Amino acid sequence: MTTQTVASLASLVEGRVIGDGTLSIRGVADLRSAGPQHIGFVRDVKYRDAAKLSSAGALITPIDLETRAAQILVADVGLAFAKVALHFHPLPRAVVHSVHKTAVVHPEAVLEEPLVIGPNVVIGRARIGRGSVLMAGVSIGDGCQLAADCVIFPNVVLYHGVTVGARVVMHSGTVIGSDGFGYVRDDATFHKVPQLGGVQIGDDVEIGANCTIDRGAIGDTKIGARNKLDNLCHFAHNCVTGEDCAFAAGALIAGSTIIGNRVIMGGHVLTSGHLRVVDDVRVAGNSALLRDIDKPGDYMGYPAQEKLRFLRQMKAVRELVEMKKAFEALSKRVESLLPPPPSL
Amino acid sequence: MTTQTVASLASLVEGRVIGDGTLSIRGVADLRSAGPQHIGFVRDVKYRDAAKLSSAGALITPIDLETRAAQILVADVGLAFAKVALHFHPLPRAVVHSVHKTAVVHPEAVLEEPLVIGPNVVIGRARIGRGSVLMAGVSIGDGCQLAADCVIFPNVVLYHGVTVGARVVMHSGTVIGSDGFGYVRDDATFHKVPQLGGVQIGDDVEIGANCTIDRGAIGDTKIGARNKLDNLCHFAHNCVTGEDCAFAAGALIAGSTIIGNRVIMGGHVLTSGHLRVVDDVRVAGNSALLRDIDKPGDYMGYPAQEKLRFLRQMKAVRELVEMKKAFEALSKRVESLLPPPPSL
Amino acid sequence: MTTQTVASLASLVEGRVIGDGTLSIRGVADLRSAGPQHIGFVRDVKYRDAAKLSSAGALITPIDLETRAAQILVADVGLAFAKVALHFHPLPRAVVHSVHKTAVVHPEAVLEEPLVIGPNVVIGRARIGRGSVLMAGVSIGDGCQLAADCVIFPNVVLYHGVTVGARVVMHSGTVIGSDGFGYVRDDATFHKVPQLGGVQIGDDVEIGANCTIDRGAIGDTKIGARNKLDNLCHFAHNCVTGEDCAFAAGALIAGSTIIGNRVIMGGHVLTSGHLRVVDDVRVAGNSALLRDIDKPGDYMGYPAQEKLRFLRQMKAVRELVEMKKAFEALSKRVESLLPPPPSL
Repeated sequence: MTTQTVASLASLVEGRVIGDGTLSIRGVADLRSAGPQHIGFVRDVKYRDAAKLSSAGALITPIDLETRAAQILVADVGLAFAKVALHFHPLPRAVVHSVHKTAVVHPEAVLEEPLVIGPNVVIGRARIGRGSVLMAGVSIGDGCQLAADCVIFPNVVLYHGVTVGARVVMHSGTVIGSDGFGYVRDDATFHKVPQLGGVQIGDDVEIGANCTIDRGAIGDTKIGARNKLDNLCHFAHNCVTGEDCAFAAGALIAGSTIIGNRVIMGGHVLTSGHLRVVDDVRVAGNSALLRDIDKPGDYMGYPAQEKLRFLRQMKAVRELVEMKKAFEALSKRVESLLPPPPSL
Repeated sequence: MTTQTVASLASLVEGRVIGDGTLSIRGVADLRSAGPQHIGFVRDVKYRDAAKLSSAGALITPIDLETRAAQILVADVGLAFAKVALHFHPLPRAVVHSVHKTAVVHPEAVLEEPLVIGPNVVIGRARIGRGSVLMAGVSIGDGCQLAADCVIFPNVVLYHGVTVGARVVMHSGTVIGSDGFGYVRDDATFHKVPQLGGVQIGDDVEIGANCTIDRGAIGDTKIGARNKLDNLCHFAHNCVTGEDCAFAAGALIAGSTIIGNRVIMGGHVLTSGHLRVVDDVRVAGNSALLRDIDKPGDYMGYPAQEKLRFLRQMKAVRELVEMKKAFEALSKRVESLLPPPPSL
Repeated sequence: MTTQTVASLASLVEGRVIGDGTLSIRGVADLRSAGPQHIGFVRDVKYRDAAKLSSAGALITPIDLETRAAQILVADVGLAFAKVALHFHPLPRAVVHSVHKTAVVHPEAVLEEPLVIGPNVVIGRARIGRGSVLMAGVSIGDGCQLAADCVIFPNVVLYHGVTVGARVVMHSGTVIGSDGFGYVRDDATFHKVPQLGGVQIGDDVEIGANCTIDRGAIGDTKIGARNKLDNLCHFAHNCVTGEDCAFAAGALIAGSTIIGNRVIMGGHVLTSGHLRVVDDVRVAGNSALLRDIDKPGDYMGYPAQEKLRFLRQMKAVRELVEMKKAFEALSKRVESLLPPPPSL
């Protein structure tokens, strides 16, 4: 089990030590269940009393709590928690090369040692970067290229020709490179348009469980570096996303949509095809984007529009029944008091 | 093949026999295709004539039909159908212990005999309760605990540390225990927050195909006893549901949402994170819950509100174009008949 | 690698050759990257200049471009592209019989040679039609029947009793024949209703990745010939679709819904259960069908209604805040100018 001194954890999170920096810490815990071997986290000053009652050996905190525990003062406790917790609970990584005897690996596949290849993994004529872990039942098609230190959870499927950056994490059941939804219609009948492109996944992308990212029709579907996709997201053929985007569960991005950097979409968001979304757009959950977004900011609704505008409309809709009654009353008053309109 | 007398089926459904209770029945069938060896079901008095024409050897019925067939009188024919059909078509259950030779089982896994472990199943350092059936390609992580008589259909994935109650059914492609969607943002970049909790699934839960239930960030995600989840549902980290809930297909429950007992959500329902929903709430399909619900009843809409209120609003919206025309006409009349407003 | 003369490609697409029909073509390419061995596509007259600059050996075009390249004149370039691209990039098809040594095949399964059965495929007492390709990790239950030339991508699961037509394509992670979401409620508790029907998939159907199609409760769920389903679609028990339908990603079709021919549904469409939808209906993305549709045409909204009507309502909603202000102003004017209403 990893242990770490308070001082070295402080250095990891760029914090300042108050108290005993030589104390050994073995893991993270919440304030209530922490013991002397744990480091706890004071997310907010309002937890000051809970922190003082905690048995945690060390605390990460935004202010000096004047307790006996060793303290690490940081500006952003959430970020420090992420870094420390990841230190004690790192993602799996291959250190010793190991290919399970049930794995089926193409003789021309290039396996950069060390790798961990789990049971029933099937690898075509592909290249897998060193340090990567492919868990049970993963299927990797011909021509795939995974860079170093990827973590592919059980039963993920990569079709042929998928390029994956370094340190990419894919959760179970996700499918990358399935055919885009491309047909031409002749009379009533749909004829399949072969999907000849591939998929490119940038460095440090994490993809949730049971997502689908289709290959491009011609040219590639591209997910930008450091994108984070929640479960059950769908990216259609030839979508392109910028860097540092996040998509909550169930986001459905239609074909050829071009998304900028730092775009965040809530759960269940749908986009029409062939849209452009500029940088720094945030779309609230359940919205449907039916038009381009050419200005950064917050959007919401069906169809999506500026968030404040949509909220004002929704307020008006909630008051609409009352307004209608008031309108009918006013109409009657006007009718009763004014002379009748001239007959036509 | 199972056979059963009419009398014993009557006892199973707590019904009263009219006619020959010793008749042997071999299965259920609809009224039209039933033969003398079948039991048919008269769901409603309006099917009285069809029932009289049926060749079914026995009938389950809410009223005495005065036919030659043996009859079982019950108050709730739907419930009786469920029980009798389940008797003739039980869920799979391990009776003789059998582990397929292609299964990969950790040497420290505890397999409580009898079990049926199918081809290519991968089991880590886990405990599987007696009577359970794990079908082809299922993957069970370290530290998982399944109680007795679970049925896990092909290609289900349980990450490490998932606790599953007795008689739980999970359909194919479902993923339990994938990492929650937890990041902290530093400037533009998302940093992963390790997801240190687990998942607890209560007794008698059934989970549809291609669902995802994420592990908790700290502490567990919990699905209460006897919950029923349709296909493609998603439960984010640290959701907690009460008992006897049902979620139709595509429900997306965001993180840390606490749901009461006997809550029913329609298809495609989305909830915001950190909500509380009290007992006995029903949410119509396609709704988006953006706030707590603190009163039992029926809810609907985007955003969700009391159902009747939402329906009245929707009616007003449908009439809005007409209302607008009427308003403009009234405005003109007032303008034409009243003196102009004073100039500023 | 396949090569083909311009003349034979012209015959495939029923086009007219201008120039050298004997030229050999090895593949398709976009105008910019095409070389003399490629055939390019001029989708629109506006690409006339790009076409003239292209190094493509041949072009498929709607008009004579008077270039040195061989030309094939066609009325529908999109359709011609689909046919030519499919010729050079056909779906996989078994030519030489091959069953991977890791496949687990029931001794009473009927495998019509030639077939390609990939690693870790599990086949119960089923019949697989000649020419079909079952890729890694596919699981086929007892009683399934696949007609000729099906392509089943990795990790697809067919439960027992699923009937599949010829040339059906199923993408990874899709689950067919899982239990319908059928329960009866006794007091608060849901009791499972065994799902005794099966699933029938028509000829030439293509099903995207991570879809779910449930088996019928009694009687079968049926997907009509030539239907195309995008990723993450869900069809509940006893749905029936006509021929030549298309469902974009995330469509959720509730139980016992009967859909006509040539129906097209956009992404994220939800239907209530037990609906009927006539032929030639198109439903825009994000709509929720809560009632039968008995007239062909375009529908949209939540709840779905005639598309133009819905768009007019949405326009009125967007103007509602302004209208409310105008209404309040008018009310004040009327109040200030008319005598007060009589007191009660």
